[in-house]
Amino acid sequence: MSASHTTCFRAALIPVLASVLAFTAPVAHAQPKPVSYGDDYAHIVDLQGRYIFAQDFNDADGYAAVFTEDGVLDWAGGEIKGRDAIRKFKADGVYNLSKNAENAAWPATTRHFITNTVVTVDGDTAKAWTYWFQANNNTADRKSFYGLYGHYEDDLRRVNGQWLFSRRAIYNEGVKGRTKAGTKNPVK
Amino acid sequence: MSASHTTCFRAALIPVLASVLAFTAPVAHAQPKPVSYGDDYAHIVDLQGRYIFAQDFNDADGYAAVFTEDGVLDWAGGEIKGRDAIRKFKADGVYNLSKNAENAAWPATTRHFITNTVVTVDGDTAKAWTYWFQANNNTADRKSFYGLYGHYEDDLRRVNGQWLFSRRAIYNEGVKGRTKAGTKNPVK
Amino acid sequence: MSASHTTCFRAALIPVLASVLAFTAPVAHAQPKPVSYGDDYAHIVDLQGRYIFAQDFNDADGYAAVFTEDGVLDWAGGEIKGRDAIRKFKADGVYNLSKNAENAAWPATTRHFITNTVVTVDGDTAKAWTYWFQANNNTADRKSFYGLYGHYEDDLRRVNGQWLFSRRAIYNEGVKGRTKAGTKNPVK
Repeated sequence: MSASHTTCFRAALIPVLASVLAFTAPVAHAQPKPVSYGDDYAHIVDLQGRYIFAQDFNDADGYAAVFTEDGVLDWAGGEIKGRDAIRKFKADGVYNLSKNAENAAWPATTRHFITNTVVTVDGDTAKAWTYWFQANNNTADRKSFYGLYGHYEDDLRRVNGQWLFSRRAIYNEGVKGRTKAGTKNPVK
Repeated sequence: MSASHTTCFRAALIPVLASVLAFTAPVAHAQPKPVSYGDDYAHIVDLQGRYIFAQDFNDADGYAAVFTEDGVLDWAGGEIKGRDAIRKFKADGVYNLSKNAENAAWPATTRHFITNTVVTVDGDTAKAWTYWFQANNNTADRKSFYGLYGHYEDDLRRVNGQWLFSRRAIYNEGVKGRTKAGTKNPVK
Repeated sequence: MSASHTTCFRAALIPVLASVLAFTAPVAHAQPKPVSYGDDYAHIVDLQGRYIFAQDFNDADGYAAVFTEDGVLDWAGGEIKGRDAIRKFKADGVYNLSKNAENAAWPATTRHFITNTVVTVDGDTAKAWTYWFQANNNTADRKSFYGLYGHYEDDLRRVNGQWLFSRRAIYNEGVKGRTKAGTKNPVK
């Protein structure tokens, strides 16, 4: 290549490199890992639903899976610390509220309904507050009875992109010592 | 143009073309049609709400509109196949639970409340599981009564960008043959 | 610089400028302010939850904060106009339903549960429809009682990026004059 061509070629390299950077950099710049409140809220409400289905259907693995490894469940019976202990707690049936009533054609069920979820996200942690109430049909004719209600106060942590409960506290307005009656709005 | 200019010009063409590609390609690359769990979850929960408002307010068109054309409703009375059949089913009032009680100042209502929605998305299909319970005030003084509860197991399909039910199965813990009591967690 | 180098340099400028434009324009083009249904739906449902927590925990500031400055609350007692009037209304306890029953170990509570939220967004305004029902344990042994139910019809406005209620109408199927029994599906 002649000297003028070489210089010309080198001069042309700069925009080529710039074009390559332009091609790659905007993609890297324009596609940050998406963090949207809609995604966080949806995953957290979905997680809450998975907790309840697992609880009500006596699925100990599913119940424990929604917690971080060091997750804590704080309930009327005290604190259960760590996912393994939570799995055992559920599997042992301490919290198993489904019992067969006599003379019933099919098993009784208990159901916990969750509503009003409020979520505040702060990076890879979040807080959530959710109402719950409970019904069951542990009656001879399987007529339903609507009973206790309360709310959850949750700390969550995003682990490998997945939201999990790091701490779940269950409050119950029908159980002495577990009520939040008369206290201030817990939502932050 | 002299030979050296021509060569120079051709050499400069390459980065120009690259720049044009850089300008266009990242846009095409950086703006795929957005598919986010938050959008899918929100549309599916919203769809569930639209189903219920239509059901409780006896809106047969709105009730059918949430199903795909070939959608199936699987309930205690059997399977209803296809959106037209579903519309007719609703319009015929087989499922119309609102009746006037005697001596009442305004009509009675029935209301179905849905909670705990869990959603798993797989491309343009999804599965969802949701609790429901029912109340009505078909009493002389319009005092409310909280009754049956159960859950939905849904298959959904995204049709022209809109999530619709392709199959909705209604389980009811107070109706023999429609319960899921004693079965495993249905959530996947 | 020689004439051929100058021309070559100028020829190379064009792709350099194009590269710079390619670098900047796609970013400006690829990053519009995100408006997604998932985000809107999540914020609006979260807002509904914040309203309820504030209402049930008697937090007048939190209760008023979910309304626009000119927001209107339309309830059985009439219309309350403006955020300040709404705050006063809540602080005055007209709507405070928590009362201590005799011989009870802890205060009574009232809880409102919200479900079935349907949201239609139109730019910076939205409409939402949501079911509610109420429970309380204002009984000597704090056993719960499930009572009234109804629904909200809401107009919302996005103010500085935040969704707020511009008008919230509360319907109640147990209160004469506040029912929507027998009317058409309000959802649009």
